[in-house]
Amino acid sequence: MRHERISIVGLGAMGSALASALLEAGREVTVWNRTPGKAGELVARGAREASSVEEAIGAGGLTVACLLDDASVREALGPALRKPAGGTLVNLTSGSVRQARELAGWLGGYGVRFLAGGIMAVPPTVGTEGSFILYSGARDLFDRVAPVLGPIGRPHWVGEDPGLAALYDMAALSGMYGMGAGADHAVALVHAEGGDVETFKREVLRPWMEQMLPITVAGADVSESVPDEYNPAMQATGLETILSASAEAGVPADLAGHLRSSLWRMQRAVTAG
Amino acid sequence: MRHERISIVGLGAMGSALASALLEAGREVTVWNRTPGKAGELVARGAREASSVEEAIGAGGLTVACLLDDASVREALGPALRKPAGGTLVNLTSGSVRQARELAGWLGGYGVRFLAGGIMAVPPTVGTEGSFILYSGARDLFDRVAPVLGPIGRPHWVGEDPGLAALYDMAALSGMYGMGAGADHAVALVHAEGGDVETFKREVLRPWMEQMLPITVAGADVSESVPDEYNPAMQATGLETILSASAEAGVPADLAGHLRSSLWRMQRAVTAG
Ligand SMILES: NC(=O)c1ccc[n+]([C@@H]2O[C@H](COP(=O)([O-])OP(=O)(O)OC[C@H]3O[C@@H](n4cnc5c(N)ncnc54)[C@H](OP(=O)(O)O)[C@@H]3O)[C@@H](O)[C@H]2O)c1
Ligand SMILES: NC(=O)c1ccc[n+]([C@@H]2O[C@H](COP(=O)([O-])OP(=O)(O)OC[C@H]3O[C@@H](n4cnc5c(N)ncnc54)[C@H](OP(=O)(O)O)[C@@H]3O)[C@@H](O)[C@H]2O)c1
Repeated sequence: MRHERISIVGLGAMGSALASALLEAGREVTVWNRTPGKAGELVARGAREASSVEEAIGAGGLTVACLLDDASVREALGPALRKPAGGTLVNLTSGSVRQARELAGWLGGYGVRFLAGGIMAVPPTVGTEGSFILYSGARDLFDRVAPVLGPIGRPHWVGEDPGLAALYDMAALSGMYGMGAGADHAVALVHAEGGDVETFKREVLRPWMEQMLPITVAGADVSESVPDEYNPAMQATGLETILSASAEAGVPADLAGHLRSSLWRMQRAVTAG
Repeated sequence: MRHERISIVGLGAMGSALASALLEAGREVTVWNRTPGKAGELVARGAREASSVEEAIGAGGLTVACLLDDASVREALGPALRKPAGGTLVNLTSGSVRQARELAGWLGGYGVRFLAGGIMAVPPTVGTEGSFILYSGARDLFDRVAPVLGPIGRPHWVGEDPGLAALYDMAALSGMYGMGAGADHAVALVHAEGGDVETFKREVLRPWMEQMLPITVAGADVSESVPDEYNPAMQATGLETILSASAEAGVPADLAGHLRSSLWRMQRAVTAG
């Protein structure tokens, strides 16, 4: 089981990283990519290159798709699914909850067993300590697939609903993009005012964000009220200071969306009392 | 020197936490707050309460202001500054770069030595491991003040320009608000789609953000181009998926500002080639 043959459909940055981690762990890997010419290094390391999706899917019981988006998954797999196909598809392409549920239905109609996934890594961290893969779908299928795909990242099953992996993946990405929007804006502000960006990142931004991360995640909430100690009026004042100072410094307003989101939450909390 | 008397002007959440940490460390502390009745617990622990700002400032060489914003600092201190005042003011009120520079000039006109500061902590973490205080202004003044105020957080001098502490403070706060905007939106999305918020925070959001924090801070940049491995076209597609999925799920659009900031950066990178 552990040495079941694995086909990787899609050799973008992520698909290539997945194939590489699996080869590294000694798995038998078949690869396919729409645009040819991306498999060279993987083939040199022992991968087999399929000349069509049909061949890739036919090559083994377990196919992993990692393409740009949901539409590209349907476009790539559609032609190979004209007859009852069987086999198992693990989709590690990012998408929405609805897309994952619909994909499960579409593939089920062809007799394909389906596990939805979300990669909690970037290509350089695939398979490294701290990286993990979210899966949702039938538990027995997860139990079979988890040891096979272990080398790409710690397998973490989140439930039967095929939409759950996409939900948690998308939501976690949103958290990361917030961190990125904040860090980009911070750097733009320091740069615009003539501060030392590298010193700032190393000595201030990173230790501060590390200190605040657990508190921030614990305090993330959807209610209109915030705990008293959040002091939304003080925070709203602080946010307005940062927004006006950024505008004065000439930092593009488009970079400050995270501040407007935060201000909106604080103002709602002030209004709600 | 170390046991120089310290006056704290402002007993909001933060001023109270500062006074408390200083008392805890055995410092002699005088406190003042605009609205009376906030000093009770601190007085019981050995603080002296001043009945006016003038008295607070008169009580010792070192005054620490921690008020709502820049305007409140001028409003609170103005009346006490009618004659040459002398002494030292450390301002730990958040504000902008320009405000800090102007405050330095204003106080200099009264013969007050001025150190600008930024508290990299929240009230419960004041003085704890990991918290730190940014200072900017004359280095000799910092060297005198640092050991006195050590108990409120590791002192970190960032330069002579009084605006620098405010700059780095504001920018770091912006980074934190990004993290908060992202986490709030993530939780709102999981909640709206019926996921388990607590499991999500603990098992997905926090480990993922911890994994991505160093990479995100290192990659924060102001240029239009992003490194190849960022794959801005793939990220723009992913961001659009999250934005439309959030709208479908009924998550308020105001919570998604960080996604629009991030999308804007990725689109500019795609355009710039
Ligand atoms: N990179 C990351 O940091 C990261 C992290 C977590 C998750 N992910 C997710 O992983 C997936 C892949 O990301 P990536 O970084 O590998 O993107 P990428 O480098 O842009 O690769 C995109 C892949 O999709 C293929 N593709 C696009 N449209 C197609 C179509 N209509 N039919 C067949 N193939 C098509 C491309 O083939 P061609 O070579 O023919 O264009 C390429 O193999 C995305 O869903 C992404 O959200 C990425
Ligand atoms: N709390 C935090 O997490 C945190 C973290 C880092 C930095 N800071 C900064 O620390 C400062 C204080 O924050 P905080 O949390 O202590 O806020 P707070 O709890 O809202 O306290 C505000 C303080 O300012 C005083 N004040 C407001 N307007 C005044 C005026 N015109 N004249 C005199 N006093 C006035 C208030 O006095 P009354 O009692 O009379 O209203 C109160 O003592 C802010 O600049 C904040 O940005 C706070």
